[in-house]
Parts: sequence; structure tokens; C-alpha cells
Amino acid sequence: MTDTTSLTAAEARGRFRAGEVSPTSGWASGFTQANLMILPEPDAFDFLLFAQRNPKSCPVLGVLEPGETAGPLLSDGDIRTDAPLYRVYVDGVLERETPDITDWWRPDLVSFLIGCSFTFERALLEGGVRIAHLDQGVNVPMYRTSVRCLSAGAIAGPMVVSMRPVPASQVADAVRISARYPAVHGAPVHIGDPEQLGITDLDQPDFGDAVRINPGELPVFWACGVTPQAAVMESKPPLAISHAPGHMFITDARDSDYLVP
Amino acid sequence: MTDTTSLTAAEARGRFRAGEVSPTSGWASGFTQANLMILPEPDAFDFLLFAQRNPKSCPVLGVLEPGETAGPLLSDGDIRTDAPLYRVYVDGVLERETPDITDWWRPDLVSFLIGCSFTFERALLEGGVRIAHLDQGVNVPMYRTSVRCLSAGAIAGPMVVSMRPVPASQVADAVRISARYPAVHGAPVHIGDPEQLGITDLDQPDFGDAVRINPGELPVFWACGVTPQAAVMESKPPLAISHAPGHMFITDARDSDYLVP
Repeated sequence: MTDTTSLTAAEARGRFRAGEVSPTSGWASGFTQANLMILPEPDAFDFLLFAQRNPKSCPVLGVLEPGETAGPLLSDGDIRTDAPLYRVYVDGVLERETPDITDWWRPDLVSFLIGCSFTFERALLEGGVRIAHLDQGVNVPMYRTSVRCLSAGAIAGPMVVSMRPVPASQVADAVRISARYPAVHGAPVHIGDPEQLGITDLDQPDFGDAVRINPGELPVFWACGVTPQAAVMESKPPLAISHAPGHMFITDARDSDYLVP
Repeated sequence: MTDTTSLTAAEARGRFRAGEVSPTSGWASGFTQANLMILPEPDAFDFLLFAQRNPKSCPVLGVLEPGETAGPLLSDGDIRTDAPLYRVYVDGVLERETPDITDWWRPDLVSFLIGCSFTFERALLEGGVRIAHLDQGVNVPMYRTSVRCLSAGAIAGPMVVSMRPVPASQVADAVRISARYPAVHGAPVHIGDPEQLGITDLDQPDFGDAVRINPGELPVFWACGVTPQAAVMESKPPLAISHAPGHMFITDARDSDYLVP
């Protein structure tokens, strides 16, 4: 079995293009993984504005113009085949999960690549901050909050957050390290008091899996890349295509490209 | 005469709304001044994407949706009357300079507020870095470069840079301080070698005024908010409205809002 960690982004995309389906956590180390959102032109302006207004939830790494299937972040690739798994939403309802969206492609589709927390998780680990859901072998817990994103045209929705328990002595480190990656959600949006976000039970995440919080750890909340999907589900555009959760689009960018001083 | 430095943003806008015309340098200290670009809807998506792709030149602070004349950055204000002076471009050609664009207003116009170097200049001064054009009492020199911005749809153009001479011993300070304001052009794009930018004579700026460079100083180049205007002139949309150079839109945001760690 090939070590998927050491693949280049292009090699990983090639395997997905050839039909492999796999979550991408740990694949192509150092290359930036992205959330994907594809919308037809009339909704694309609203979505781009939604992202501009909610940059912590929707940090845009790149945009392919109407009909484009490749671009600088995927020079040799094809946006229609190179994610391991896609989700097609029609009028805001999940219609199909598929590894290839060529049959759904239209010349008016605009593709957005949006930053993903995998990038700052790697930096946290390097900084000595353990990641509970990795240690516990589950998906990160995510919660719809009572905080509304700033809306834009027809696009509106709640802020979705991911939660990582952090020892009290390392919360400042977690803030400092993730703040250096503003293009991939940046610093936490909230620390320590889930009720203020409208979260009543941390053991019941809306997406992903619950994690154990040990004594002396605080729940730390970051804006989450599922926010655009939640907004699309609420706003019900006629067509929207995203990656399937955890099955990210692997770009040619390097995580270090998004590090600020 | 009122001290314009101590006005609030709302007070300053009120004076411009009432008919006063003045460059805004030094007005409403601490409030963030912005470049303004107003475009009809078909061009607005391309422009927003142009800004997303060229964030150092076109850092978007806020967007008013089609037809909106107020918003969070100008809560009590009116985008049509509250800049001291506007420029109206028809098919890319300057048609009129006017203190009030109410007669030009249409429900499909989208207004973009774009970061301005005034914000980081204040931080440079506080950091002990002198600003030559302020010392010499002239406008900052700006140059069209041979570097092309990344284009987006119908919008394309050259990167325009501003230049400030900085003593060699303070160049690192100037980088470090301005880098902390990524929302207002951030760190310099080039230091010390104008020919690499296609600038053959620093004494002949394309916009603004030449400044004296003293022995021991290096020319330091920052991406400039005139870049969107240059792109609009080159791309010739049917209608585009901007502020007049130096006559900025004063927003309710604070410069400190844009400081990153």
C-alpha cells in the first residue's frame, strides 16, 4: 500500500480522478486541502460576497470563473473529477453523492475553493497542541450556532463552528498559532462557554463526532468550513455542488503559503 | 476653523454631505479612510473577484449590495453624497468630477469600499518611520508597473504602486509594521529596485508627486488603491464611479480594527 502522506497534490488528485474514494485527512502532507462549493452564476456573486463578509467561516483560497474546470490551484487537474467525493444539492436538498460531477457540469458554474482547518491543525500539532479528535480517532465535532453570518443577497445562514478541547495552559498557544493562518479560519471565534453560541450539549454535535473533554481542558471553537454548506442548504439555490465532508479537494498550494508573520 | 482631525467619521461625512470639498488626509483621526469604487451589477462580480485575486492592491473593507446607499461602515451615511468628491467614468473615460452622485444613482449599482494606505502610514509614523511625502508636503508618488494583476472576467489592469523612501536601517521596521495591516495593502510588494517593476524614472510618477530620496534611503513600494481605478480605466465598463484621488470616503471603522497580531 502506497503511503498517501508522501503523495504530491497532483498525484493524489490523479488517484481520485481514476476512481479512488477516501477521506483525505493525512494525504499529500504540506499541500493545502480545501472545501469546495460550486454554484451557477446568478448565485455566485452573492456567495462571493457572503464569503467576503464572513472571512473566518469562508476564507476563499481561489475561484474558477464560469465554466472553468482548472486554474492555478489545480494546474493539471479537473474540478469535476479530482475530489474523492462530491455532494449535489438541488433546491437545497442533497440529491446525490458521486465521485464525478461531469454529468452535472454546466458552462455557468463557478467553483470556490475555501480554506480548511486541516492546515492549522498541522501547525497546532507542530506547536505541541494535541488534537483530541485525531487522538480519539474520530471526526472533529461541529455545531450549528445561534450566531447568524452576515448575509449577502440570497445567501444567509448560521455560523458553524468546530470544537477542539485544549488544556487551559495551552489555550493561548492555540490562539497564537491558529491566528497566524487567517486564510484557513484563523484564531478561534469563542473559547470556553458553549451556551453563548447556543450550544446546549457538546456531546451532541450537528456534524462529525463527539469528543471527550478531559478535566482542565476548555472547549475552543473555530469558524468552520461547513458554514458555506449550511448557508447553501438554508438558501436553497437551484443547484449547488460541494465536496463530501472530509473528502477535501487537494490543491497545489502549500500550507506555508498561508502563514502570516 | 474647526480642527478636522478630531471630528468623528459621521461628523466628517456630514460636512461633505453639506457641500464641503477637501482632501481628507488628517481628517477624523483613528477612523479608517477608504477608496471607493461603484459599478453596475454585471461588472460587480468580476470586480469582486478581481479584488479577491489581488488582495494587496484591492483589499475590500465592505460592499453595499445593489442599490444600497448605506451599510455597517457608514451607518448613518449615504454613499452618494458623503465622499468629498467623486469621479464618474463612462466607458472608461473620466466624464465628470462632482461632490454628489445622486443624479447618477441606479438600483443596480454596487459600492465597494477598499483599504487605503493612510491607515498604515499612521502606524509607520507611530513606529518612528518618517513619511517623505508628508514631510515634503506633497501627494505620495504612484507608478503604473509592468506587473499585471490577475484578471477576473472583464476586469484587468496593471498593478499600481505607491513609493515611500525609507532609511536602510528602518526598511525592516517598515515591512514589519505595515505587514500587520493586511487589510490596507499590508507589507511592501517590492524594495529597492524600481526597474524590476518597469519604473524607469522615479522622478516621473504616473499619479501624485515626486519626492526627494536622500542618500542612505531605499525606495519601498506598496500595492496601491489606485490599482482598481487603473483596471476600470483599462477595462472600460459602461459606468464606474470612484472617489477623487485624496478625497477618500471616511468610514465608521477604526484603523485598529484592521491590526493583526
